[in-house]
Amino acid sequence: MSDIKKVVLAYSGGLDTSVILKWLEETYGCEVVTFTADIGQGEELEPARAKAEAMGVKEIYIDDLREEYARDFVFPMFRANAVYEGEYLLGTSIARPLIAKRLVEIVNETGADAIAHGATGKGNDQVRFELGAYALKPDVKVIAPWREWDLLSREKLMAYAETHGIPVDFAKAGKKSPYSMDANLLHISYEGGILEDPWAEPEEEMWRWSVSPEKAPDEPTYLELTFEKGDIVAIDGRPTSPARVMEYLNQVGGANGIGRDDIVENRYVGMKSRGCYETPAGTIMLKAHRAMESLTLDREVAHLKDELMPRYASLIYNGYWWSPERRMLQEMIDASQATVNGVVRVKLYKGNVIVAGRRSETDSLFDESIATFEDDAGAYDQKDAAGFIKLNALRLRIAARKGR
Amino acid sequence: MSDIKKVVLAYSGGLDTSVILKWLEETYGCEVVTFTADIGQGEELEPARAKAEAMGVKEIYIDDLREEYARDFVFPMFRANAVYEGEYLLGTSIARPLIAKRLVEIVNETGADAIAHGATGKGNDQVRFELGAYALKPDVKVIAPWREWDLLSREKLMAYAETHGIPVDFAKAGKKSPYSMDANLLHISYEGGILEDPWAEPEEEMWRWSVSPEKAPDEPTYLELTFEKGDIVAIDGRPTSPARVMEYLNQVGGANGIGRDDIVENRYVGMKSRGCYETPAGTIMLKAHRAMESLTLDREVAHLKDELMPRYASLIYNGYWWSPERRMLQEMIDASQATVNGVVRVKLYKGNVIVAGRRSETDSLFDESIATFEDDAGAYDQKDAAGFIKLNALRLRIAARKGR
Amino acid sequence: MSDIKKVVLAYSGGLDTSVILKWLEETYGCEVVTFTADIGQGEELEPARAKAEAMGVKEIYIDDLREEYARDFVFPMFRANAVYEGEYLLGTSIARPLIAKRLVEIVNETGADAIAHGATGKGNDQVRFELGAYALKPDVKVIAPWREWDLLSREKLMAYAETHGIPVDFAKAGKKSPYSMDANLLHISYEGGILEDPWAEPEEEMWRWSVSPEKAPDEPTYLELTFEKGDIVAIDGRPTSPARVMEYLNQVGGANGIGRDDIVENRYVGMKSRGCYETPAGTIMLKAHRAMESLTLDREVAHLKDELMPRYASLIYNGYWWSPERRMLQEMIDASQATVNGVVRVKLYKGNVIVAGRRSETDSLFDESIATFEDDAGAYDQKDAAGFIKLNALRLRIAARKGR
Amino acid sequence: MSDIKKVVLAYSGGLDTSVILKWLEETYGCEVVTFTADIGQGEELEPARAKAEAMGVKEIYIDDLREEYARDFVFPMFRANAVYEGEYLLGTSIARPLIAKRLVEIVNETGADAIAHGATGKGNDQVRFELGAYALKPDVKVIAPWREWDLLSREKLMAYAETHGIPVDFAKAGKKSPYSMDANLLHISYEGGILEDPWAEPEEEMWRWSVSPEKAPDEPTYLELTFEKGDIVAIDGRPTSPARVMEYLNQVGGANGIGRDDIVENRYVGMKSRGCYETPAGTIMLKAHRAMESLTLDREVAHLKDELMPRYASLIYNGYWWSPERRMLQEMIDASQATVNGVVRVKLYKGNVIVAGRRSETDSLFDESIATFEDDAGAYDQKDAAGFIKLNALRLRIAARKGR
Repeated sequence: MSDIKKVVLAYSGGLDTSVILKWLEETYGCEVVTFTADIGQGEELEPARAKAEAMGVKEIYIDDLREEYARDFVFPMFRANAVYEGEYLLGTSIARPLIAKRLVEIVNETGADAIAHGATGKGNDQVRFELGAYALKPDVKVIAPWREWDLLSREKLMAYAETHGIPVDFAKAGKKSPYSMDANLLHISYEGGILEDPWAEPEEEMWRWSVSPEKAPDEPTYLELTFEKGDIVAIDGRPTSPARVMEYLNQVGGANGIGRDDIVENRYVGMKSRGCYETPAGTIMLKAHRAMESLTLDREVAHLKDELMPRYASLIYNGYWWSPERRMLQEMIDASQATVNGVVRVKLYKGNVIVAGRRSETDSLFDESIATFEDDAGAYDQKDAAGFIKLNALRLRIAARKGR
Repeated sequence: MSDIKKVVLAYSGGLDTSVILKWLEETYGCEVVTFTADIGQGEELEPARAKAEAMGVKEIYIDDLREEYARDFVFPMFRANAVYEGEYLLGTSIARPLIAKRLVEIVNETGADAIAHGATGKGNDQVRFELGAYALKPDVKVIAPWREWDLLSREKLMAYAETHGIPVDFAKAGKKSPYSMDANLLHISYEGGILEDPWAEPEEEMWRWSVSPEKAPDEPTYLELTFEKGDIVAIDGRPTSPARVMEYLNQVGGANGIGRDDIVENRYVGMKSRGCYETPAGTIMLKAHRAMESLTLDREVAHLKDELMPRYASLIYNGYWWSPERRMLQEMIDASQATVNGVVRVKLYKGNVIVAGRRSETDSLFDESIATFEDDAGAYDQKDAAGFIKLNALRLRIAARKGR
Repeated sequence: MSDIKKVVLAYSGGLDTSVILKWLEETYGCEVVTFTADIGQGEELEPARAKAEAMGVKEIYIDDLREEYARDFVFPMFRANAVYEGEYLLGTSIARPLIAKRLVEIVNETGADAIAHGATGKGNDQVRFELGAYALKPDVKVIAPWREWDLLSREKLMAYAETHGIPVDFAKAGKKSPYSMDANLLHISYEGGILEDPWAEPEEEMWRWSVSPEKAPDEPTYLELTFEKGDIVAIDGRPTSPARVMEYLNQVGGANGIGRDDIVENRYVGMKSRGCYETPAGTIMLKAHRAMESLTLDREVAHLKDELMPRYASLIYNGYWWSPERRMLQEMIDASQATVNGVVRVKLYKGNVIVAGRRSETDSLFDESIATFEDDAGAYDQKDAAGFIKLNALRLRIAARKGR
Repeated sequence: MSDIKKVVLAYSGGLDTSVILKWLEETYGCEVVTFTADIGQGEELEPARAKAEAMGVKEIYIDDLREEYARDFVFPMFRANAVYEGEYLLGTSIARPLIAKRLVEIVNETGADAIAHGATGKGNDQVRFELGAYALKPDVKVIAPWREWDLLSREKLMAYAETHGIPVDFAKAGKKSPYSMDANLLHISYEGGILEDPWAEPEEEMWRWSVSPEKAPDEPTYLELTFEKGDIVAIDGRPTSPARVMEYLNQVGGANGIGRDDIVENRYVGMKSRGCYETPAGTIMLKAHRAMESLTLDREVAHLKDELMPRYASLIYNGYWWSPERRMLQEMIDASQATVNGVVRVKLYKGNVIVAGRRSETDSLFDESIATFEDDAGAYDQKDAAGFIKLNALRLRIAARKGR
């Protein structure tokens, strides 16, 4: 283990990563560089800096990555309408490749040998961090303490912290949530605790970002979302940056009880797990983006996107953001979005996102003169349908004549 | 046209198909057999019989097909989680193959030469009826009056009716909905009128099967849905037949503001169209079925189903229910459902269908002892993850070393 | 029919299109512009010009499109390894969109209203011509005489020619091949005649571009093909243009008995048909391109290409070259080819194309130090495989424990 | 390691597995049961028995699994036309799940705790053996000595053998092939040695099952292969069992220079490797099966099979034969084969497999009366094609009008 001299640690400032910080120094005899990012998790970063300083860290990286996260990761993913297993909007998954990228950049800047993270050996996040790091820097070392040490219970961690003089916010530790949580601009997630019983309904107090539909306002909220090339660029006519789009939609969506989900999902490491998620902005974005596409995308382009979507979503879920196959799919998806321009009007009401209108001056493929139930003045010759059906039926008829 | 002696007409008893009835007799000099089915559209059938008799029809078929429809068409489709273009639950599409099948059966029973239907030349239904008929009886003749005649406005139809002594319920005709509607156990649909402007929000009065979320009760409704082989077989513990499942869920769902959808869709004949749908039962069934699968299906089986679903949905949308490729896919889908057994608890509240629990005594693949965040007593060796990641990363690392 | 004043006709100079020329003038009272292209079919174009002039045509277009055809149509298609139904290299299909494009360009240049072609109503070519034309000029008129007239036998055509003073090369007509043939740089095809019996083996005399394997030389021929971004750019080290690549490989391949195929295929219009094809260059190109990719493409990129290939091939077969979905797929395919650079050595021998070597200085992902059966000095840690297998097996083990 | 009392070893009788046998006894202090199977590798089994006896093994299993292998593994796979990465017929991959199954059966019969195999930690076979074993007996232990020991060179193995009194056939060891080889009814494979350079052409002496095309007879061989439900059941009219079909086609195919392949492939463990294969029977079977399907399968069924084939092939390549997703796909594939009945005539000549005819009295969908280039007496109305094209073009035209 002596060949590791400097490690860049994804550091939150919490108990776990503080213990990891000390454990790395002790176990590997190496220097630790901390990296803490604001990706919209809604927590102050300065306490993490103070804590790292207090623990003697010399190189401390603190970054506000919210705009990069929204612009280069979340928005491209939503162009694909990505949903994992019919339900999950990939809120944790899509944040990991950005962290991996930044860890590698700091390794390069600081001359470190390795990265370390606080993800466990049972979950998807370890895979996402490490596949990203290896893809971007193939010979980087990776230290995943949860796969190595024996501090496998909260008591042991606390004891380690005490022994090693790691400052623990006991007030906070005492009222610690029974859930394992993760948050960023796209969502907050909950796992563990009573959720380990898939029959148990989550308690109302668990949810942090949204009110329940029951407590949401009795009046609906309408929003107009302007799309350019598949991305939301303005809300109610006001140009808005990607991160601000998400912050605003999280706030308005959460206030209207939107974006809760409660699922059993299949992890890449092979087990099923139960997770609850609040994704207010994402829920609105997905519905609105689909509506925008419904007006502006060619049918076969849309269908091809739909057929490839589950695979694209799995790639992101499984940690392959930086893989050539994800990039190749993204080329195709981005190319499809050139015409996804216009406005979608949505109505938010007690957990519902309702599309109330969609228009595109430049790119609508909806042709009222053809679609109309009224007289279309010859725009469409109904007799064409007879031949269309006859030839589409031909193979079925030949088979039927053979007695199939 | 002299070679057609007898036609079986899909007859609703309304103005359009009554005019068609007469027009067929006049134009083809043929006898007409009427076929009217209860597939849950919520209308009495006896008036159709009376009207057919009044118009001199000698062979009148009236069938209650609700159970067959739910059991053999809707339920198998829901095993696939079929959704067209991310939104549409295929409420019209899935009824057509049953009508086609029954038309062909009556052709065989009555010695008729042809079938006739009242679908227009612009829509999907003509395709669905005719592909079904050709697949089941390859040499049947098909008459689609809307593609042949010139009665292309309501006025002309009314005039024809008057001229030919067709009884018109002027009271009903006068308050005729501005929308083109279609209903069966799975949904009621609305097209035309102001919906031809995709920016226009539908009026509240349009909706017939559901209250608005705003008017739904302030208290949620909980249901327990029991699945066997992917199908709902009991509600709150009471064994329930397929059609009754749908009727009950339509009623409870509609009362809770569930199942409205408003979309722009791509028709098989090549145009985009706007449609609004109320699908209360279907919306609940889809959500609950996915939840049941999430607990009981293998990951890769579920993913394969997800990837093939859009194609399966397109097949049904496009009228290929009776095709060999749909049947082949169904074999696979049905095979996957052997283990989809258990109970899902759903909460219905003002437009929301919320999964509140899922369990399966016999077939759950959720293994708490492995998934737990607590000590798992060695059920899962976290160190395995290191090798798993290393080998999954290998190709990415080799490529990165080559400078990709 | 009076609204058509000028038609651009795809004109070969043969009997069929000469009759069409006259028939168009007579039937539509319109002027006819002829368009004749060299796409490598191996026939002189000047006789077509002379014949058009003799028939009084004023606007005659004669183009050598061989390089454009190879560069912008054939080569992009081969980047996808496109094969229809496991066998057919799409030799006719890929030529049609170029003809359609050029017809539309000439319509624009000459102020014509319509295009006309000599494809029958039973085949795929009519679809390919017309979908292309409509996609590029949506309001162009299309005249397909074979779908309109009653000159449905050779005798009637000959009679029409005689009546209308169309010069017929009776010598040529007399020894006319019993097959319907089509040729361009990519292939020559044969249909009809005894081939309409799928049990019948084609006569040796049918084949025109290749010797039989039996008659091919007893010595093999080796070639080195240099690829850049997936395209062959040099043969045996000599830079070679796309059309010349094809001409040269056709010649060498044909001389070695390479590229014959004999299949039953499914037409887009719904019937099965029997076709025989000679595709010497294409057969070599496909084998070599796959070999080049095997060394330089990432595994998952290659697999994704393989899974999408049948759909891409169907798009081309069915005439959707100019569709947005084909273009979208092409974006992805082309993006994948950036690294497909290097040299493939092939051995041609009596019908066989054998890969004898492949190398890429810049882009090989073959890592001998890892792949070796000898000691790899730690480049690969075999112990990683245990964890890899364990986690990949986890879902299977959980299921097996539940008795599945 | 003390908890393993009895191990079932996949035993060939060669040096490697003999060393493993001894090493297992020494390292684990356990009893070893040997299992040796005839799956068509073309070697006597009795020497393996004698050697096992000589080494003191008490429980020796020797099975002739050729018919089971051909019938239940190879034939079902060929129904899918499975080819990995466009070239590889999966000759090694498909044998592994049978070995895994039999190992588990013997574990159950003998009360053993574990299985052991001689596959290295770099290859695919370890994965295939172990995924199979875990899927069939989730708590079986697996010992893979190559991942554990340090006998990583031939010299060390030989030294170990000498030290432990393992009889080595030095004559055989001395003239040992420079290649790593594997053989069964479906193929013989070669890896390693000079093949580790992908530019190097294999030496003619390497190949063992086939003559070179150069040395094959100057006269072609014709065969008639009768298919029932997608499987070959007779050759030249003589009913033939699955294993005999393969043995016979290997012999005739090899004699005609058929079935050599030389590729770079992507292993599941993440690296590229070079392999050469001789697959005479498989090459003939694939070509003939496709020809049989071309006549008897519906177009869309065939296309769906083609699109899913690469995934099915990857599943087998990667070792997922016993997974639920492979079984689900197999349900669909097998269902498609009900009509794949008839006869294919093939011509074998110097490396070429040429389809010379195909017929099916009962299931041909080739309809000469429709496909004919001659007058079809109205079987097909060419005018239908106009409407077919018009509606297929509609979305393209609408888009073009919008300037796309």
